[in-house]
Order: sequence, then C-alpha cells, then structure tokens
Amino acid sequence: MNLSLNKRGEGPEGLDKLLNNVLNYSVNSWSPNFCDKLYSSTTPIGVMSELILGALNGLSHVYSVSPCLIQMELAAGRELTNLLGYSGPNRGGVTFPGGSQSNFMAMSLARNLKFPEIKMNGYNGEKLAVFTPQHGHYSIDKTAISMGIGLNRVYKVPCNIDGSMNTEKLESMIQSSIEAGETPFFVNSSAGSTVLGAYDDFGTISNICKRYDLWYHIDGSWGGSLMFSKTHNHLLENANLSDSFTINPHKLLGVPVQCSYLLLQDRFLLNQAHSLNADYLFHNTTSSSKASLDDDNWLYSNMDLADGTVGCGRRPDGFKMFLTWKYMGTEGFTKRVDHALASAQYFQHKINEHPNFKLLVPSTSLNVCFYYLPKGNQGTINETILSTNHNIPEIPQQYSVITKTIADRMKSEGRIMIDYSPLKVFNEETNDYENLPHFFRMVFGHPGTSENTINNMIDEINRIGSQL
Amino acid sequence: MNLSLNKRGEGPEGLDKLLNNVLNYSVNSWSPNFCDKLYSSTTPIGVMSELILGALNGLSHVYSVSPCLIQMELAAGRELTNLLGYSGPNRGGVTFPGGSQSNFMAMSLARNLKFPEIKMNGYNGEKLAVFTPQHGHYSIDKTAISMGIGLNRVYKVPCNIDGSMNTEKLESMIQSSIEAGETPFFVNSSAGSTVLGAYDDFGTISNICKRYDLWYHIDGSWGGSLMFSKTHNHLLENANLSDSFTINPHKLLGVPVQCSYLLLQDRFLLNQAHSLNADYLFHNTTSSSKASLDDDNWLYSNMDLADGTVGCGRRPDGFKMFLTWKYMGTEGFTKRVDHALASAQYFQHKINEHPNFKLLVPSTSLNVCFYYLPKGNQGTINETILSTNHNIPEIPQQYSVITKTIADRMKSEGRIMIDYSPLKVFNEETNDYENLPHFFRMVFGHPGTSENTINNMIDEINRIGSQL
Repeated sequence: MNLSLNKRGEGPEGLDKLLNNVLNYSVNSWSPNFCDKLYSSTTPIGVMSELILGALNGLSHVYSVSPCLIQMELAAGRELTNLLGYSGPNRGGVTFPGGSQSNFMAMSLARNLKFPEIKMNGYNGEKLAVFTPQHGHYSIDKTAISMGIGLNRVYKVPCNIDGSMNTEKLESMIQSSIEAGETPFFVNSSAGSTVLGAYDDFGTISNICKRYDLWYHIDGSWGGSLMFSKTHNHLLENANLSDSFTINPHKLLGVPVQCSYLLLQDRFLLNQAHSLNADYLFHNTTSSSKASLDDDNWLYSNMDLADGTVGCGRRPDGFKMFLTWKYMGTEGFTKRVDHALASAQYFQHKINEHPNFKLLVPSTSLNVCFYYLPKGNQGTINETILSTNHNIPEIPQQYSVITKTIADRMKSEGRIMIDYSPLKVFNEETNDYENLPHFFRMVFGHPGTSENTINNMIDEINRIGSQL
Repeated sequence: MNLSLNKRGEGPEGLDKLLNNVLNYSVNSWSPNFCDKLYSSTTPIGVMSELILGALNGLSHVYSVSPCLIQMELAAGRELTNLLGYSGPNRGGVTFPGGSQSNFMAMSLARNLKFPEIKMNGYNGEKLAVFTPQHGHYSIDKTAISMGIGLNRVYKVPCNIDGSMNTEKLESMIQSSIEAGETPFFVNSSAGSTVLGAYDDFGTISNICKRYDLWYHIDGSWGGSLMFSKTHNHLLENANLSDSFTINPHKLLGVPVQCSYLLLQDRFLLNQAHSLNADYLFHNTTSSSKASLDDDNWLYSNMDLADGTVGCGRRPDGFKMFLTWKYMGTEGFTKRVDHALASAQYFQHKINEHPNFKLLVPSTSLNVCFYYLPKGNQGTINETILSTNHNIPEIPQQYSVITKTIADRMKSEGRIMIDYSPLKVFNEETNDYENLPHFFRMVFGHPGTSENTINNMIDEINRIGSQL
C-alpha cells in the first residue's frame, strides 16, 4: 500500500485505488466470525448516522452550534438512566470519546467534588486511594496515573471464582487503607468484566460505599447494555444504587464506534466539578438554569456540554445512539442483546459437551472462556477449571502456546478472529495471585450469529487444533 | 421536534421526518457565513471518509483489528512532523479526540517521564507548576485540575499587546515559582490563540525551557495548520524546538470534526509514559521493536496505539486526515490555508477603513477582533485599540451590549454567525489585568469566502448596528 503523501493530490483515481486497498486489507467487523474484540458490526442506520454527522460536520460543545444534536444526546442519555433505574430529578447522561474517558470523568468528578481544594491548589500530602476489581479494565489504572493518585494506590480487589469482586475483601482493603492513613474516595466495579464478563454484587458494594462515604462507579462499558435484556437484566440488579455508570452503545448495541455514555444520578455535577466559566466560549451557562426544576425543559437546560467536561470540541456521538434507538425502538435493542446472550449460552453448551474443549468457568453473560485441550488431554478434566471450590488446578504452560497458535492461524487464514487472554486469579490457599495460561475468550455481540456460525467455529478450532 | 424514544421503533418513516428536522434546525457549517467557531465546512472527501469509517466501523486501538487505518494515521502524523521540522528518528504523531485531549496527553506525558515515582505512588508533597499564556486555551487549566496540579499553580503569563506571551514575564514567573519551592515542569504556548490568533515567540520560549529543564508544548490546535502556508508559515518559526505540538486538522484544513494530532519529537515516549503492559489486550507490543531503528519499517512499529494513551478504544480519526491529504495533496491544504489568511487580511483592511468599526489589535493571522462603534462614536478613535504603547484606553461597557446585540440578532436571523468574546489584558501601568468589554471575534477558515461574502458581512453588521 502506498502511504506517501505528496505535493500533488492524487484526486479521484488515486483515491479509488487506495480505498480498494483499505477495504481489501481491513478487518471485516460485519462478519459474525469477528469475535475478537468487544464490538462487532454496526447497522445500516449506524452507517447512515455517521454519514449525516459527516455531512453536518457538527460539534456539540456549545448549544448554539449544535442545538438538535445536543438535545438528542441528552434525550438518549436521560432514557438510559431511566432504564438503569436512576431516579433523581437531575439524572442524565452525556457522551465521552470511549469508555476509558467516561471512567476517567467519573473519577475526576468524584475527586473534584469531594476535594475542591485539590481542584484549586493541587495535592497537599493527601494519599487518595481507589478500589477496583482485579479483573477490572485498565482505564482505572491509567486514570489514577493521570490524576496523580499513583498506580500503587489503585487497590486491586481479588475476585471470586465467577469473576465478581470479593466484597469482603473490598471492605477489608478499604479499612486497611484508612488505617494506613490513606483517604479512599472511589470504588469501581464491573458490569461485564473484560475477560470473564462478570457482574459484581452491586447492592453489597453500594452499602460498603455508603458506609465509608465513597463515590460508587460502575464500569458497564461492555455489559451495561444488558439493561435492555429481557432474559438477563437481573445481572444489573441494584446497579441503580451507583453514583455513575459507563455504558458503551458502540459495543453490544451496534451503534458505530465510538459512542460511550457516562450516566449520572446528577448530571449537573459535571459543571460543578469542572466548570471554569470560560466566558469566551460559554455565553449561555447560567446558574439560574436550576430554577426550572419542575419544568419539562429542565432536561434540556445546561446545554453547553463542554463546560462540564475536560475536553472542549466534542463529536456528537449521542446522535448515533439516538437515531438508532428511534429507528429500532427499545425492543430492537432488546432483541439484539438477547440474541447475543442466547448465542453465548448455545456456544457454552456445545463447548461443554465437547471432549476437546474445557470451560474456564461457567459463563453467566456474553463471554465464554475456554481451553482447547492438547492431544492426550482430551476428556481428562470433567469440570470447568475454576469451579472447584477455590482450588485452582495447575494448568500446563503448554496450553498458552496451543491457544495462541490456533488463534493466530485462524486469524492468518482470514476467516475467524477470536481473542485470547491470560488472567490473574486469586488462590485462597496460597493467598496470592496466579497467572493462568492464555485461554480463548469468545464474546458474542453480533446479531447474525446462528447455531450454524457457532458450530462452524467450533469445528474450525478443532480442525486446526487436531493438526498441532 | 419529537425526542421521545419508545418501545416500538419508528422505522424509515419516523427517521425521514426526524432527519428533515435535523437538517432544518441545524447550523450550516458549510456556509462561508459561519464564522462563529474555529472550524468550518468539511469537504466532499471529508464526508466520504466519515462514510467509509462508519462502514468499516474501525477501531484503531490495536494493530490486529485496524492495520490499514493505523498505518495511515501514523503516515500522516509523520508527515506533519516533517512539515513542522521535527527531526529525531522517532518523530511522529497520533490522534486524540480533540485538541484538549492532545494537550492533556502532552502534560501527562511530561509529568510521567519526569516524575516516574508520581506515576507509581502519586504525589508526595511535590508542588508542580505549569505556565501558559493568559490568552491560552482553557484545556491547560482543565488538565491541571485533573492531574491534581491545581488551578492555582497554572501560572497565566501576561501577554503583549499583540497577544503573544511576554517571555520576560514567563522567565521571572518561573523563577518566582522555584523560589517559592515549587517544581515547574511544563510550559504551554500558543500557535494561534483562541481569541486573538496570536503566535508566541517559540525560539525564546524554547531557550527558557532548556534553561530550566521544562517540557515545551505548543498548542497549535487552531493555528498549527499554518505549517501548510506559503505566505505565513514564518509564524511557526522555531516551533520545531518544542517537545510536542497539537494540531487540529478539523479546524482549518476541512477534515471532519474531529481530528486532532499530538506531534512528538519521540512518539515512543507515549508508551514509556503510559504503558501498563495490559497483556489481555496488547499481544504485539515488544520492547524489541526499537531494534529496527534504521529500517524503513521503524515508522510503523509499536502500532498497538492504545498502549501509549490514556484511552483504550480509539476512533481512527487519522484516516480522515490521510484520505483528505492524499486526495488534495499538500498544495491543496496550502491553497485552503492561504485563502483563509488572505480573507482575513482583506476583512481587516475593510474594517480598518470603515468609520463604524474599530480594530482591537492588528491581526497577523486568521482572527480579526473589532468593535462596532455605537452612534456618535464613529470615527472618533483613530488607531486600533491595543496598539498604543501598552496604554489601554477605557472602553465603555456599553460596547459589550452592542456587540452581543448585533451578534445575537444576526444569529437569530439565521444568515451569519460571528462569535464575540471578552479578553483579560495586562495593563503595565496598573500592573493588573483588565477585562475588555465584549468585542467581535471574526475567524476565517472557509475556502469559499469571497470579497463579496466579506463585504456583505460588513454591510450586515453595519445595517443592524445602525438600527440600534
């Protein structure tokens, strides 16, 4: 591919050749065989929404330049909080460029509200502490680095065998942190962890957060969309007790990459935490906007969105969610989500009964993690690996090589992409973390996945595996 | 407009009505009369690039899912550093979702490299300090808040009458900060400030930064694109002495919103500063990639881009820049930029000779700031307001009202959008800041602006003004 950029433009002919190459050499995320990452195909409506955004060239930082787009972003955000079960009058959501940024904003918000003197004067010897599940997303670590909290004060709470955060350990780690003179202020938990797809016990964690006066954030970047599910929305029980919640409609809901919402019990806190009253830009933000609380227009006040964020220019990602929602209806999303969940269940069922595969742990949602068993080991382990009463078996390192080899070969043949992963698990017996050898992480989000798709994938892994 | 989101989707009919409303009630940034913000029309190529991104639904966090898109992002980033004049073997640029994020990454990078112990353990009583021009963008303040530096240790360096940072004051403020026991580590300066469009004295600032061992960042979000100019690229003289440089091709170059590049003397520093080696995601990042320094492929090593950022999922905004560049060539951008500069000069000339208008300060680039003079004051001031030897005249507050009234009326009539702004200027006589009443800030970036467009705008302001 010719990547040179020259003085003379190449015009339509050059572009034609280039675009053919782009299409030929790009990964086709529209295929049900793309199960590598936590997003999949978008929809025709999604593509159309990008086209319209491109044509409008809209920017949603201030209301005066994007009135429609901002109202739609807020309307969809409000509706998401309704689904989640937030109930305060100021509930609402705004978009950020990706789940990491939404998580970032939640932590920044929490700190600035609780420690306004840090906002003004910087740290003054405080040792803030943050708690997140061992299996949680790395954006919490990166945020803590950026915010000057330090990686070593991001406490990784061990997870139970099913991947959920161990709430007893959470509480004891909070206590230890306080005893060590630190100031805990933020707890993150997962609604659909990256590798295992686990959901935490939101009710218990919320109680702990209340007890110690901590901001409670849930990272539902991946699995938050189960709020649309008919069959599995119980996994989000008590998630409405959190202060903030990240959901990425660009993952499970088929909204184009990217679209991430930070949902808040009170979205006006964003302004309180981050506003600088930059009057060269924000001409409309007035504190009096709070006066109209009982007014229907309340939902749409404070619409200079960038005033409450760290960024300035904003791509109006909420428009894509709004348009897709309007077109498909809530039930369209429900269908998509429940189909993905049913696909995961079917896949798990097939893997479980196949002698050449071994589940890492029974899946309750969209992620199915498993090993392909090397020759001679087929059928030798009868249970899922992590189901045996906290007794973690020794898994030969050879399994890592087998996993990677099969995944890489499928990828290079260009037909199927499945990701693999290692995992740190906490061994109660040794009271320490163990690194499991790499296993396959299969995720389901594509609306076109059929039983046939799944059977073919299993055959394909088996075919390549048997040649090793 | 019906913003309800219901159980049943509204399908094509509902969408048709909705999209008509969106188009009717949205601001038309394709019009040369849209001069309100620092972006304007995109191009047909721009729209097409969004369509293709939407169709690919690409995500550029790891190479394995977006090989083409990442190579194109890096190719355009490298070429931008060449234009700027960076010369190190590792020079390059990557995109972030907006200029604020690019500026954020520069400061985060600088701190993490200089204070790796803060990355790990958080602040331990250090009082870091940051310096930025009084007229600089607010993203520096917001970043300093997030990073726990504190707003009060963002030192706002007074600007000269032309809007450039006063370098003597910069140095004395750095010295004062050190004497007060603080640790300066970061200087930001402007290549095209938001309100006046001013360019700082990059050579002198670079020397100061070297003297005190400070990271030198230039925020060229708005005016960095003058690197493409034939007539005005001297304004960027010595900008290549900086460590990092933000440029937003979505502003002056007509690449769709948003596309922001952070250019770096050494782009691999991103990984050094931010990598967590999250091995569940990044399977390819190896330190050995540095081994191929003399290889052409070097440009394209370390391509799991999210490893070096704070975010994870990334929209492949660089593709839009690459595609536009490939189509139009460097000379296409040059033509666009130089046309905008010529428009600004023509506008300034017309304003300057018109008795009803008064320039705030002579413009050297794309921003022309001026007052409309109220009845009875026409022709009474003979010079530009801020040209008189640091002697800032008293400007009646009434001018603010006139500015806002005219701008709001033009906006509500729906034909012309021009922004207005206040400005803090430093008065040498009183040794303090003064707030100037709001004035018009006219910016030029549209390729279709003609002398006729400009004459009509001036007539329109004059027409409305004369009715007040």
